[in-house]
Amino acid sequence: MAHPYMPRDLNLLDYVPNSLSQSTILAVFGLSSFVVVSLIWLISGLYFFLSLPLFVILFKWLISVPGRCAKISKLDRWLMCWWTFTGLTHIILEGYFAFSPEFYKEKTGFYLAEVWKEYSKGDSRYAARDVGVVAVEGITAVFEGPLSLLATFAIAKGKSYSYILQFAISLGQLYGTAVYFITAYMEGDKFAASAYYYYAYYVIANSFWVVIPTLISIRCWKKICSAFQLQGQKKNKVR
Amino acid sequence: MAHPYMPRDLNLLDYVPNSLSQSTILAVFGLSSFVVVSLIWLISGLYFFLSLPLFVILFKWLISVPGRCAKISKLDRWLMCWWTFTGLTHIILEGYFAFSPEFYKEKTGFYLAEVWKEYSKGDSRYAARDVGVVAVEGITAVFEGPLSLLATFAIAKGKSYSYILQFAISLGQLYGTAVYFITAYMEGDKFAASAYYYYAYYVIANSFWVVIPTLISIRCWKKICSAFQLQGQKKNKVR
Repeated sequence: MAHPYMPRDLNLLDYVPNSLSQSTILAVFGLSSFVVVSLIWLISGLYFFLSLPLFVILFKWLISVPGRCAKISKLDRWLMCWWTFTGLTHIILEGYFAFSPEFYKEKTGFYLAEVWKEYSKGDSRYAARDVGVVAVEGITAVFEGPLSLLATFAIAKGKSYSYILQFAISLGQLYGTAVYFITAYMEGDKFAASAYYYYAYYVIANSFWVVIPTLISIRCWKKICSAFQLQGQKKNKVR
Repeated sequence: MAHPYMPRDLNLLDYVPNSLSQSTILAVFGLSSFVVVSLIWLISGLYFFLSLPLFVILFKWLISVPGRCAKISKLDRWLMCWWTFTGLTHIILEGYFAFSPEFYKEKTGFYLAEVWKEYSKGDSRYAARDVGVVAVEGITAVFEGPLSLLATFAIAKGKSYSYILQFAISLGQLYGTAVYFITAYMEGDKFAASAYYYYAYYVIANSFWVVIPTLISIRCWKKICSAFQLQGQKKNKVR
């Protein structure tokens, strides 16, 4: 079975083509992401729940700092949405890829295999099982995925490790994306089936994991520096 | 010219063998590292210099926090040694490798080319210019190298970004080492010329960049959490 990927001489024995259309694959991803983001946005903002006795215990533990009941800022609520979205993407989508070397032979139309068959049109190294790509995706799925969900929880609870955790994951995402782009560039950037897939999948889809982690890293860096400046002032006062 | 690397079918046209012996190469690296570490250790501890007028201005700027003249702790002095050593290694050794695709053809006995010809006995992907290895070494040389030297300076000056900077570089080193080991493992771990080179170069030499960054990351994580706990206590007092 001939495959639609580039370079044309890539050998994919027993390849089975996509059974879902591009629009179906994107719609499922878009809709489920929208549901997740909406849920996190609503739950993180629903403070009136706290007046209902049934929810008090659960919510006190889930989204409030012990001893106080400060509202979560809008920015922090957006960040909770981001961390939940990116965490589930890392665990479910990238986790499936990292541990399914033969997804391109999948005949059942299983959604996660369909996603990677489709994405491989933008970067055939996924179907070809390039070791650099698999290493980065493995690290992302195993470490960054669960830690992203922990970040959502850390923001909600106002944990002292919240910023350093967000910084660590963002830096990991940036490092992974850097390895991903540099290796493709060094091999001649020849892995997209067409200019359309190159820009839509390889450039635009990945750019979110460049721009957002960069912004989060800068914010966390500043917050952490401020905390140490405050600590320094306190020490100087004691002197 | 037949090369000494594994796998035997690796094609290295115009390969020129090492002209320096293993002991010479290691001795130069060991001695120059020893000189660098000793210098940093001595300078960071020589507080009596501050009583000599000639050194006051230079030293006030280089190693003291403005307005105070606190002694640098022994642990911080060791860390300054580590960051200078690892920074120079990243910039000089790994920087040369990242931007010298044809080092294995070098005829002049140039020291940096000799180092990589020798190290390739532990991991031939260096001579073979594996894109994953080059990407990781490039990121290490360009970003982590200069930032490591900045970390030495930041510790000396007691900068507020000192811990987050050390954390960021250490995490980058760990990520790079993870990609480095995972990709070799996935390709069958077949790149060492013998068990001796495998353990001496590939395992033991690299293990320093696993153990030390791990310890530094944990320390920085704790320091940063403490700073936020202090900030939290302060805020609660204000309430």
